[in-house]
Amino acid sequence: MERKIYIVGMGPGREDMMTGEAVRALDQADVIVGYTVYLELLGQRFQGKEMVSAPMRREEERCRLCFIEAQKGKRVALVCSGDAGIYGMASLMYEIGREYPETELVVVAGVTAACSGAAVLGAPLNHDFCTISLSDLLTPWEVIERRLKGAARGDFVIVLYNPSSRKRRDYLRRACDILLRVIEGSRACGYVENIGREGTRAEVCTLEKLGDREVNMFTTVFIGNSDSIILNGRLITKRGYGIERNIDFRRNH
Amino acid sequence: MERKIYIVGMGPGREDMMTGEAVRALDQADVIVGYTVYLELLGQRFQGKEMVSAPMRREEERCRLCFIEAQKGKRVALVCSGDAGIYGMASLMYEIGREYPETELVVVAGVTAACSGAAVLGAPLNHDFCTISLSDLLTPWEVIERRLKGAARGDFVIVLYNPSSRKRRDYLRRACDILLRVIEGSRACGYVENIGREGTRAEVCTLEKLGDREVNMFTTVFIGNSDSIILNGRLITKRGYGIERNIDFRRNH
Repeated sequence: MERKIYIVGMGPGREDMMTGEAVRALDQADVIVGYTVYLELLGQRFQGKEMVSAPMRREEERCRLCFIEAQKGKRVALVCSGDAGIYGMASLMYEIGREYPETELVVVAGVTAACSGAAVLGAPLNHDFCTISLSDLLTPWEVIERRLKGAARGDFVIVLYNPSSRKRRDYLRRACDILLRVIEGSRACGYVENIGREGTRAEVCTLEKLGDREVNMFTTVFIGNSDSIILNGRLITKRGYGIERNIDFRRNH
Repeated sequence: MERKIYIVGMGPGREDMMTGEAVRALDQADVIVGYTVYLELLGQRFQGKEMVSAPMRREEERCRLCFIEAQKGKRVALVCSGDAGIYGMASLMYEIGREYPETELVVVAGVTAACSGAAVLGAPLNHDFCTISLSDLLTPWEVIERRLKGAARGDFVIVLYNPSSRKRRDYLRRACDILLRVIEGSRACGYVENIGREGTRAEVCTLEKLGDREVNMFTTVFIGNSDSIILNGRLITKRGYGIERNIDFRRNH
């Protein structure tokens, strides 16, 4: 029997922010595995399903659980928030999958917080950008610092994931201080909390002020590049299109 | 009358890779505006709609067209491939929107090629990454070069958009040569052509070989970071989770 596990990015949370492909993978699953909070975010539509949750920081056991369920002949879907391949479980599933060569892995892409957050803020990512997680659970702070510097020197728009947590209250402040060595304090920035969930809140400010703002593990932070501006409360990164003069377009009727 | 224009990311092309929100925005539109190729990609579902297409390089007129149609009282959706905010039309719409203060802009996020391409290749983005467009139509090559160096020094996974075109055949080669000054030739890389469309094709190779590969404007290129590996033909970026010993999970039944 052919065994497949679907590794599904559910987007920020709302069902209508999932792709059709992701909804279908969950509809067809016998068992849905995921971090408790994400399973709770799944709409009424999936509540009849067998759900298996493992707490945070137990990523490896959550993965093994998927293979164990698949070996029982069940159709398994592993849900991750956003995109399953971005700070998600996809790569760990492939690593552990070496022990289960009879099981095929299928990643179903989703809308990551950089994209869903940008849509709320305006258009901050409209040129080259990078994502950096401020969580040092799995990454030494020196590497995070090196990436912040590289991103600032490269004039990328920067999206910060996991900007803060109970144990890392001052990490956004620390990141801003590093960026301020390269970037001017008036740089246009913004942040979004609870994207696609209850209580979505978006703010824009300068890099100078950003470090003092209250953020949490559900906040995504955006630092503009040298072409970014705040326009009527929106964060916009210009692409610098030249004005076009000669109008010429076709209609289908 | 309240006027809204929806700026919709359609994902890579297949309708089931669009979000429910994006499908709804197009369903409810009186007129769908977009680059010819994207309008043709839209499924049977939308073919009854009034469609207005403007050719490539006419981004500004395509945007103005949306506001003109909205002023006629029509519900307008502007489609972009991938995510409308990533190398898309969102920021230009906000800039031109200054002239049309009575029209509200709503960006509907979509799955960008970095995410959809990563899902085909395996899990190459599973840590901090950046996107860089190799198109120098709107960006001086010096800026692109600066970003390539910043990304390599920061040890980011790098996703290259627009790696080549008829007029820029050697740009991927040029980009690889710049990266090879900082990154070893054996670095794990990959690329995907026609994501979510007819003839999807994915390949993995080393950075050394990447510059010689045939790519086109429908190819998305991935350069791994120092933790990336090629595993059974997949490109995987390790997150380095520690092994967990004590199994402890809950079932809903």
